[in-house]
Amino acid sequence: MAKGVTKQSVDFSKWYNDVVKLAQLADHGPVKGTMVMRPYGYAIWELIQKELDQRFKATGHVNAYFPTFIPQSFLEKEAEHVEGFAPEVAVVTHGGGKKLEEPLIVRPTSETIIWHMYKKWISSYRDLPLLINQWANVFRWEMRPRLFIRTTEFLWQEGHTAHATAEEAQEETLKMLEVYREFSENVLGMPVIVGQKSENEKFAGAVNTYSIEAMMRDGKALQAGTSHYLGQNFAKAFDVTFQNTDNNPEFVYATSWGVSTRLIGAVIMTHGDDKGLILPPNIAPFQIVFVPIFKTEDEKILVMSKVDDISTALLKKNVRVKIDDDETKSPGFKFNEWEMRGVPMRVEIGHRDISENHAKVVTRHNGVKEFISLDNLASMLFDKLTTIQNELFERAVLYREENTSTVETWEEFKQVLNDKGGFIKAYWDGSRETENKIKEETKATIRIIPFNSKATERTCVYSGQPAQYEVIFAKAY
Amino acid sequence: MAKGVTKQSVDFSKWYNDVVKLAQLADHGPVKGTMVMRPYGYAIWELIQKELDQRFKATGHVNAYFPTFIPQSFLEKEAEHVEGFAPEVAVVTHGGGKKLEEPLIVRPTSETIIWHMYKKWISSYRDLPLLINQWANVFRWEMRPRLFIRTTEFLWQEGHTAHATAEEAQEETLKMLEVYREFSENVLGMPVIVGQKSENEKFAGAVNTYSIEAMMRDGKALQAGTSHYLGQNFAKAFDVTFQNTDNNPEFVYATSWGVSTRLIGAVIMTHGDDKGLILPPNIAPFQIVFVPIFKTEDEKILVMSKVDDISTALLKKNVRVKIDDDETKSPGFKFNEWEMRGVPMRVEIGHRDISENHAKVVTRHNGVKEFISLDNLASMLFDKLTTIQNELFERAVLYREENTSTVETWEEFKQVLNDKGGFIKAYWDGSRETENKIKEETKATIRIIPFNSKATERTCVYSGQPAQYEVIFAKAY
Repeated sequence: MAKGVTKQSVDFSKWYNDVVKLAQLADHGPVKGTMVMRPYGYAIWELIQKELDQRFKATGHVNAYFPTFIPQSFLEKEAEHVEGFAPEVAVVTHGGGKKLEEPLIVRPTSETIIWHMYKKWISSYRDLPLLINQWANVFRWEMRPRLFIRTTEFLWQEGHTAHATAEEAQEETLKMLEVYREFSENVLGMPVIVGQKSENEKFAGAVNTYSIEAMMRDGKALQAGTSHYLGQNFAKAFDVTFQNTDNNPEFVYATSWGVSTRLIGAVIMTHGDDKGLILPPNIAPFQIVFVPIFKTEDEKILVMSKVDDISTALLKKNVRVKIDDDETKSPGFKFNEWEMRGVPMRVEIGHRDISENHAKVVTRHNGVKEFISLDNLASMLFDKLTTIQNELFERAVLYREENTSTVETWEEFKQVLNDKGGFIKAYWDGSRETENKIKEETKATIRIIPFNSKATERTCVYSGQPAQYEVIFAKAY
Repeated sequence: MAKGVTKQSVDFSKWYNDVVKLAQLADHGPVKGTMVMRPYGYAIWELIQKELDQRFKATGHVNAYFPTFIPQSFLEKEAEHVEGFAPEVAVVTHGGGKKLEEPLIVRPTSETIIWHMYKKWISSYRDLPLLINQWANVFRWEMRPRLFIRTTEFLWQEGHTAHATAEEAQEETLKMLEVYREFSENVLGMPVIVGQKSENEKFAGAVNTYSIEAMMRDGKALQAGTSHYLGQNFAKAFDVTFQNTDNNPEFVYATSWGVSTRLIGAVIMTHGDDKGLILPPNIAPFQIVFVPIFKTEDEKILVMSKVDDISTALLKKNVRVKIDDDETKSPGFKFNEWEMRGVPMRVEIGHRDISENHAKVVTRHNGVKEFISLDNLASMLFDKLTTIQNELFERAVLYREENTSTVETWEEFKQVLNDKGGFIKAYWDGSRETENKIKEETKATIRIIPFNSKATERTCVYSGQPAQYEVIFAKAY
């Protein structure tokens, strides 16, 4: 175990903070709830951005940028929206040395300002669909901040699309949810359950909210991304109509969808162990770290030359390689350091290894140590990256399965939640009242109504009333 | 001339606004001075970011992200800094429904918050150099906003580096200035003069400010990027010391450097003409637009098949291609539209062109029309992109030379400035007083003290005192 990392079983929350700090992913900013993303953490975000941005563009979206400052009156135009966001906004009251006539909201999300602009840009069905995404910082005052998971300022992307029909907008909502699922599973190695949110949990201003829901290693659920079908709510609030093909004015249909730097917190808590961070190769700033081992100058020349050869071959295949040749630190120190920082593979090469024509390769997530011939080391390492990516995903799927229980009775529900935690599959009558009571009694909420949910001839685990859905309950971040 | 674009000679400022609006680069936001970057404008920014980010990383820098909200007290720690920025900051006074104990500044630049963090991260010479860049939005209340050039919120990058010696920091300052020069000239096709700023024009808190200075097509100067040597000013303000190799504490040396979305305004005003925008191929979202021309369905099949062949060949070479096959618009409309939006080349292909085995290629910046054989069209177009990029740069160099005058007397200075404008090379005694008086009388300021400036045995154009430098005077944005 690396120095300073608390064991997960001792205090998961402390383990998390240790990893974030010691792996130099992030630090607290001077203003409560704010976060500094350090270079190693930000490099993960850059890789996430690149992968997502490609997917957004491949599905026909373009990027744009809207102002951060929103007139306070905008927020009030959509009734549910203002109710949801007003309590957590930051407000600018002074600018350029003067008190402002109207206070400005620092965007908590951009529906209002974007639909204000869409009114100027949309007049005919020919202007639709409008498929815009924005990469931006947003601000929500946090009472219980946690680095990456809930911070007063965070980075995210927010897609805001406008459509001529409800069907097309609904299709877009689900298409982007699928982009998030595929990305989470294939890039982050993080299995997610896809489905719909209950009324209690949906976005303020949405008709329906869909989400991808992941399980963390403490059994708690984390909402990792959301996609909202907004119907005509924002079009009505901002009076955005278009001439349809029959030449009649009609309100525009909308979606919005977003993921944020929270994903980095999700990755930490999906894959990490008592040694620290474990990064899936697809988002690891360094996929392979080389630790050359030598004592004399002659050994150094020999070893470094071999390390350079292999790393050059890997760089040509776009592998992200780090050579840790810092002579002020011992090999043992480096082994611990890069394990704690989650690098998927470590390659140790000393002069004796070279005489034996092999290198020692240590795989981070399972601790497997093996000697691999120098003759085909580069291609073996390259192939192992894919294997590791897959194994991490499979391991996380297994963990989720092991920590998902199906319960029939309310006693069982409470007992499982208390003894084991994790995801609980149970039948629900579909009422807000039941969901609220379950939350009051247990702190568990409905995380998701899975798309394949069926509840024919079943009864609600709490109320005994006829069930509407089989849903996933859990305590959540 | 495209519909709605004012001629440059009639009203340059109106021409600029017409181009920004009609080319759909940007729009005004609802809050005075704010800007919405529309997809076409933002796509240019994405290309600028990509090119710059590669250069920053190639010179050893990493990206990070610091919070937008800065405690007001931070700004006051560096005397010149607060004097320069306090009048133009936006202030958050309320958050989460409550009045804050200490108001927060919405970052106008990040030196203060970054040096607050550097104090935590730097303790020894082993922690240096620290070479961090940030891509972010910043906020400066603007009294005379102009889209891209001066907006209340803008996007930029800000490098903030920490060094163990003054020499190393100075070297970094000039290295990044050179990165900006090379980028401006080779990517934006915009020639710049490099040098130092006078005391009047330097950054609030810097020891020296260096800049790249460009000439717009109205003869005015535009500061396109700056690189600051900050000495130990911020290290002293935030008490950031390191143990040097002799084990003694010493204040850290600093630099900062930045360019912003202002560069897009600079590109518009460097290359544009009365037909609208002209984009250098290296930052054109669409480098080549194809306008297929057909009447019958048979012609359409024939023409589109050929267009697809050629564009596929170009896409394989990473050329950014747009095929405008919108059947609701006439070819003539499209020609005007894409000329106004600055696409470097237009390819017109009709069924008759195909029978004659050629296509008509129109080059945006010089209006040259030529028929090129279909046999080698893709490779010809590909090669022409480089030619166009070079021609735009050379044309801009020539324009600058034609509009740069060397003057000997004060009468001549005033006359040239009045009659011709542009850059005026003149000798200056090096005093703030003289610079202020020249500004009062003519509105011209010292844009830059070029690196190769010499003034031996010369006298100041205004005061008649011995000259210290030959400098560039101009009216500026």
